[in-house]
Amino acid sequence: MTLPDTAARRKVIADFRSDTVTTPTPEMREAMARAEVGDDVYGEDPTVNALQAEVARLTGHEAGLFMPSGSMTNQVAIAVHTRRGEEVVCAEGSHIYEWELGMMAAFSGVVPRFVPAPLGVPDPAQVRAAVRRSVHQSPTGLISLENTHNKAGGTVIPLDVLAQIRAVADDEGLPLHLDGARVFNAAAALDVPLHEITRHFHTVSVCLSKGLGAPVGSVLTGSREAMKQAHRYRKMLGGGMRQAGVLAAAALVALRDGPARLNDDHRRTRQLAGALVDAGYRVDLAAVQTNIIYVDLPDAQQRVEEWDARGVRASALGPGSVRFVLHHQVSDEALEGAIGVLTA
Amino acid sequence: MTLPDTAARRKVIADFRSDTVTTPTPEMREAMARAEVGDDVYGEDPTVNALQAEVARLTGHEAGLFMPSGSMTNQVAIAVHTRRGEEVVCAEGSHIYEWELGMMAAFSGVVPRFVPAPLGVPDPAQVRAAVRRSVHQSPTGLISLENTHNKAGGTVIPLDVLAQIRAVADDEGLPLHLDGARVFNAAAALDVPLHEITRHFHTVSVCLSKGLGAPVGSVLTGSREAMKQAHRYRKMLGGGMRQAGVLAAAALVALRDGPARLNDDHRRTRQLAGALVDAGYRVDLAAVQTNIIYVDLPDAQQRVEEWDARGVRASALGPGSVRFVLHHQVSDEALEGAIGVLTA
Amino acid sequence: MTLPDTAARRKVIADFRSDTVTTPTPEMREAMARAEVGDDVYGEDPTVNALQAEVARLTGHEAGLFMPSGSMTNQVAIAVHTRRGEEVVCAEGSHIYEWELGMMAAFSGVVPRFVPAPLGVPDPAQVRAAVRRSVHQSPTGLISLENTHNKAGGTVIPLDVLAQIRAVADDEGLPLHLDGARVFNAAAALDVPLHEITRHFHTVSVCLSKGLGAPVGSVLTGSREAMKQAHRYRKMLGGGMRQAGVLAAAALVALRDGPARLNDDHRRTRQLAGALVDAGYRVDLAAVQTNIIYVDLPDAQQRVEEWDARGVRASALGPGSVRFVLHHQVSDEALEGAIGVLTA
Amino acid sequence: MTLPDTAARRKVIADFRSDTVTTPTPEMREAMARAEVGDDVYGEDPTVNALQAEVARLTGHEAGLFMPSGSMTNQVAIAVHTRRGEEVVCAEGSHIYEWELGMMAAFSGVVPRFVPAPLGVPDPAQVRAAVRRSVHQSPTGLISLENTHNKAGGTVIPLDVLAQIRAVADDEGLPLHLDGARVFNAAAALDVPLHEITRHFHTVSVCLSKGLGAPVGSVLTGSREAMKQAHRYRKMLGGGMRQAGVLAAAALVALRDGPARLNDDHRRTRQLAGALVDAGYRVDLAAVQTNIIYVDLPDAQQRVEEWDARGVRASALGPGSVRFVLHHQVSDEALEGAIGVLTA
Repeated sequence: MTLPDTAARRKVIADFRSDTVTTPTPEMREAMARAEVGDDVYGEDPTVNALQAEVARLTGHEAGLFMPSGSMTNQVAIAVHTRRGEEVVCAEGSHIYEWELGMMAAFSGVVPRFVPAPLGVPDPAQVRAAVRRSVHQSPTGLISLENTHNKAGGTVIPLDVLAQIRAVADDEGLPLHLDGARVFNAAAALDVPLHEITRHFHTVSVCLSKGLGAPVGSVLTGSREAMKQAHRYRKMLGGGMRQAGVLAAAALVALRDGPARLNDDHRRTRQLAGALVDAGYRVDLAAVQTNIIYVDLPDAQQRVEEWDARGVRASALGPGSVRFVLHHQVSDEALEGAIGVLTA
Repeated sequence: MTLPDTAARRKVIADFRSDTVTTPTPEMREAMARAEVGDDVYGEDPTVNALQAEVARLTGHEAGLFMPSGSMTNQVAIAVHTRRGEEVVCAEGSHIYEWELGMMAAFSGVVPRFVPAPLGVPDPAQVRAAVRRSVHQSPTGLISLENTHNKAGGTVIPLDVLAQIRAVADDEGLPLHLDGARVFNAAAALDVPLHEITRHFHTVSVCLSKGLGAPVGSVLTGSREAMKQAHRYRKMLGGGMRQAGVLAAAALVALRDGPARLNDDHRRTRQLAGALVDAGYRVDLAAVQTNIIYVDLPDAQQRVEEWDARGVRASALGPGSVRFVLHHQVSDEALEGAIGVLTA
Repeated sequence: MTLPDTAARRKVIADFRSDTVTTPTPEMREAMARAEVGDDVYGEDPTVNALQAEVARLTGHEAGLFMPSGSMTNQVAIAVHTRRGEEVVCAEGSHIYEWELGMMAAFSGVVPRFVPAPLGVPDPAQVRAAVRRSVHQSPTGLISLENTHNKAGGTVIPLDVLAQIRAVADDEGLPLHLDGARVFNAAAALDVPLHEITRHFHTVSVCLSKGLGAPVGSVLTGSREAMKQAHRYRKMLGGGMRQAGVLAAAALVALRDGPARLNDDHRRTRQLAGALVDAGYRVDLAAVQTNIIYVDLPDAQQRVEEWDARGVRASALGPGSVRFVLHHQVSDEALEGAIGVLTA
Repeated sequence: MTLPDTAARRKVIADFRSDTVTTPTPEMREAMARAEVGDDVYGEDPTVNALQAEVARLTGHEAGLFMPSGSMTNQVAIAVHTRRGEEVVCAEGSHIYEWELGMMAAFSGVVPRFVPAPLGVPDPAQVRAAVRRSVHQSPTGLISLENTHNKAGGTVIPLDVLAQIRAVADDEGLPLHLDGARVFNAAAALDVPLHEITRHFHTVSVCLSKGLGAPVGSVLTGSREAMKQAHRYRKMLGGGMRQAGVLAAAALVALRDGPARLNDDHRRTRQLAGALVDAGYRVDLAAVQTNIIYVDLPDAQQRVEEWDARGVRASALGPGSVRFVLHHQVSDEALEGAIGVLTA
């Protein structure tokens, strides 16, 4: 089996726009081609079932549910935990609010209640203060964290903060959800098994198509009862897929091979950040903890276009900020080449 | 490349539960393995783009949008066409109401307004009468048809009825959507090109994972403007998938190879229906127009379990009804074997 | 205190459009002027509190909550009992669907599941059959009845049917709500105390501005816990009113004086129905059980306009149907005059 | 006609909890008793119609719509202007978010996008920066201001800032709504006619039961087309009231007599604020612009209870803040008495 000959990709030295841009590895393609599948709407796809069980094992939860995107796993979790008109306490800049297009309101009928989060880490006391208690206000329905926190720079929440926020949730009788789109990066950065992070949460959304490199898919994990409700919401959202095992097969490969590669991504991220700072770019190195770098650049859009023309792709986010995200398809050689372009 | 050795499947003579249970063909698996892909959230997956263009070409619309399920394409279309609190005029027993779990209400905030549909065919005059005009009532936002109509027996709406209902929609200034989960079956039954059916509609949901046999996916087609709105709703629902080209590649094979096989499915359906009637089962043969058979059976659940133990699978829908759905993975030989079991 | 001199009203012999058109009696106006009030948003309006307690006493429930309309009490009850995506089992032609503008979908995110209801009375066996049990379908969240049933003709549900439907609800673990917009008419027709009807329900919406004659308001009753939730939903809907005691004062007069007048309304309704039939109009007398008459008339709109010009007002509902509703401001004399016009 | 003898009120020296706690004046009670009314659901209540026309005249809009609360007028306006999944740009601490219980999400399916607002005044440049433009984000659907801004201290937005924010709205093609719960206070503080403020907005919610003193009700004003849509949403929310003229009659008195009294409220507010500061309380005098005072007090709840026992009522908002709101039923004498208690 030969890989497709993608002319368009040959011109690119390195694509730092996101860790979602990776293409399937030969092992994933082989796995997709050989996947044993069934109709997952009937719960009969053995590969999907295996993937769900494996992610649940890793997070330490009873069960898992495969979905086509991390946005869906997050929004299903919000629906499971809340009733209409409630508030979701979350960190400023959370993906569930910034990049999920108002879905918490449109589907679950809930509003965000933000707490400040310097370097992506909310203060447990402020989380507690954000819980509503007056009958004249929306009751709080859920606390939701994001780890690593994308908009804050791929930053990691310390384990003791997780424990303290879980204690707040328990005191208040509230569920605690984790948007774990990059939770494997957090585990790698903390050098702990995944469940040391995820055990603090009632539900966790784990993305397989970011740093791990699968083509499509996320898994939500939690209790069997929560997953039963999640199953209904997944179906409502149109996330019930038929022979989804073809995707799950690739995701199982990503789960096997991906985590070990993340330390390399993080090492290269530090290398790139250092090179950028040396070249005079403004980077908050305290926020460079995993595989993401934000650079303050007044003419972000223009610079991104210039780099793109020279084979290096990055994301202009707003008028004055550029984001670089490292992933396994940026090799050491590609990184060297990209640094050459960026610091020319 | 060898196909997976699925022990579980070997015991099954024929699986008539749905045309969604088919597994990918060797050609589809090969196409998935070789698919050229990109990040479709950025619109960069060439295989997804090719699939969308091809389905749009077939329906005669400007553009298409790939999604993980037919439920999603339908619900996105409803969201595109309506505002909260409106009514969706549809035939009794429509899939968008019966099997999409209240999503028209939960997401779009709209309610169904049913018109009778003997053999799945609504009377255009009754469609017109169902349009609300009083300020004391919900305004009508959309007319939605289903062709073939699953719950009515896979029945086909005649072309002149489509034209008349489109005329009602035009008179009333209303959009017209088609749930075309099995619209290729309708085209085969009518022996017309797909666009002879789809040209009457503003949006069409085409399913690739039913009779056509793709593992996962549906495409919504319509005007460029409608697809732009649909893109936002797809993202809200979590239907934006990354390297979705691996699914689109299989779907393109399904689109190429599937339609020609439907006549065989329909022929075998008539053969099975005849055999069932000959054996004394109660079947409304007038409703057997494509690949679906409903049998009235007082002890449906028990009979289905008995057949299952003997290798023939069908769906008990409610206490007194069994559904058989034919598809390309029920061969003539399998059908003979299944008839043997069912008429024993 | 003199009543306002309403020139517009002097031309009208009788207004049969609805029992909502009554104007406050002198006793109600006096009560409004003298009402002791407070800020009901803080729960401090003594007159509102008295009204809520009195309606709860009459229905036999723990607590009540005053709202500006019967649509709001119904929709709040639906929100209390359901989660998004569920089904509400109700009789065909129910007010909560026909005249409440899709609010069950737009706010609660739920869809109706209809059962046939000849003369407004659903068959308990069909109610049971309407409860969904498959994971592929919307779960049932609520059973809702309407008594008397407006669209069926102000028809009354027999007490034993109520008991049987409550048994279904108990078997299925479902709540049972009553849209009691005209439940006092039902009690009068059955000649039983209100609680003989309402005791079968978990929540009841009682309208004070229909047959009872109050200018504005309905009360929802149920358990204290249900009313606590209802309080939040009322606030969400904007139904928290400040010195609402001015309305509650009139409603208390309506509650004191109104029920005794309903037998007269029903007697006059029978008289009018008889006169209409004698004059050759088509009326289903079996449906004339309380204060409503539907007449089948091919040229409904035109006839209604003709009568209006001669001082008799009725409602054309759809192209072929006219509705007459009796109330305490149609006296025997007015009725005679109206019959003269209608049978001229 | 004698006023009710309210024993409970006699013990209270001054109730500063809100300007919503006022009871109807004798003139309002008389007006309610004499009100000419009709069924407003049919649009036939002459007093409601007169009120709507009068408020529309004052705001300079084409039409008005009466509703039972300011929460409803705001939420109806949000529904009129937005589609599901959009963002509403508003100042931090806006009433539509803080005190309307997530209704923007639960009904309209939209989320807030906050801009900082020192002293309640958003920077037009930050309003512009808050408008979303990426297809990966929720589109902005509405800009909503609050004037005076309750949570910021009853603060007034300067007219030139309104003009600049309207210019932003026009540039972006966005509607601009005003939560004018206390817009008459703003007009009094600026010493301009109401329409000098309201002319910058597409819709305005005007509350009659706060400083103006009516028992119940708010009016939404805007274009005829907007009010037509608002009418449907009001009905959906259950805000269609029958003989609402009894409330409108009192509101018309409030509209006639109330505005002239606001300068006295503001003068007394400054007097109270000065006395509190002199007594050592922490008050941000820059925020004391109309009829509201916030005092920073570490033991807010306890102090409020102590004062309550001595006949002075205020609101503890959160653990460290007390709010005083002046209104026409706090006379100069009552104020003196209250100051005595508060500074004892």
